[in-house]
Amino acid sequence: MMNIKHTTILLLIGAASLSCNEQNKSTLISPSESQESTVFAKGKQVTNDNFTGTVWLENLIQADSLNQNSIGSVTFEPGARSKWHTHPAGQILLAIDGIGYYQEKGQPKKILRKGDAVKCPPDVPHWHGASSDTKFIQVAITGREKGETKWLEEVTDKEYESEPSI
Amino acid sequence: MMNIKHTTILLLIGAASLSCNEQNKSTLISPSESQESTVFAKGKQVTNDNFTGTVWLENLIQADSLNQNSIGSVTFEPGARSKWHTHPAGQILLAIDGIGYYQEKGQPKKILRKGDAVKCPPDVPHWHGASSDTKFIQVAITGREKGETKWLEEVTDKEYESEPSI
Repeated sequence: MMNIKHTTILLLIGAASLSCNEQNKSTLISPSESQESTVFAKGKQVTNDNFTGTVWLENLIQADSLNQNSIGSVTFEPGARSKWHTHPAGQILLAIDGIGYYQEKGQPKKILRKGDAVKCPPDVPHWHGASSDTKFIQVAITGREKGETKWLEEVTDKEYESEPSI
Repeated sequence: MMNIKHTTILLLIGAASLSCNEQNKSTLISPSESQESTVFAKGKQVTNDNFTGTVWLENLIQADSLNQNSIGSVTFEPGARSKWHTHPAGQILLAIDGIGYYQEKGQPKKILRKGDAVKCPPDVPHWHGASSDTKFIQVAITGREKGETKWLEEVTDKEYESEPSI
């Protein structure tokens, strides 16, 4: 039969366990919470109609007479992508974080992961963006010496969801 | 006076606390342990004599007829730096991680932090490297259309340790 002494002791054990659980909750850090912030600032939301979905752009380097490359960090929210487009001097993409897609006309879609680098040849129609579930952050290095980007049609859902190359 | 029942109960409380501490230790994740790995592979240690200290290079993009930019990720261990040098087509540096130094001849040394971007003009002597205490990871984007890098003298300790601009 329980008496006050036993009850007190049980309460102590219970309190120790409860305190333990609370401590565990306060120190549990999921990997995503403890990650360092992204390398580059996210920048401003893109408001032109050259993209499907939500996209952010931070201009890092402007092209000028010293160097014809313009460089920006682009963040695509999941599902977001550019339209088909071409660059007269080509483009280089560096995958900084997340999972992205890249496709040239006539080629299968490629998956891009952090650390990947892609050289897009001049005047080849292509598109790039985030995967459907995960955002994608890329640095885009675009030569401006032969003029500006030519924007084409939207990437259809069928194209966006096509099978990637292995 | 302690009896077996009291002893058992004390052991239970003690066990609950001990278990709690062990649980706390196993869930404690320090920020550095939980950080994602660096963006790009570290690559191979540089063995030429164009640098002071330990430096690693991962070639990301080779220059070719499609695009004259060569791009590499360079990791400088603390204290490591390039020699003074020039690029005939200039160079762009993107600070990916850590803390670095960058200096052009006649200008004060600059501190580079993650997310910074620097445009080095063509033919301007300069050097870059890690800070004295912290490694530095940079992406270097170098146009090759006008020829290769010209390597000059070593950065002296006095130059390396000079006061940075604010």
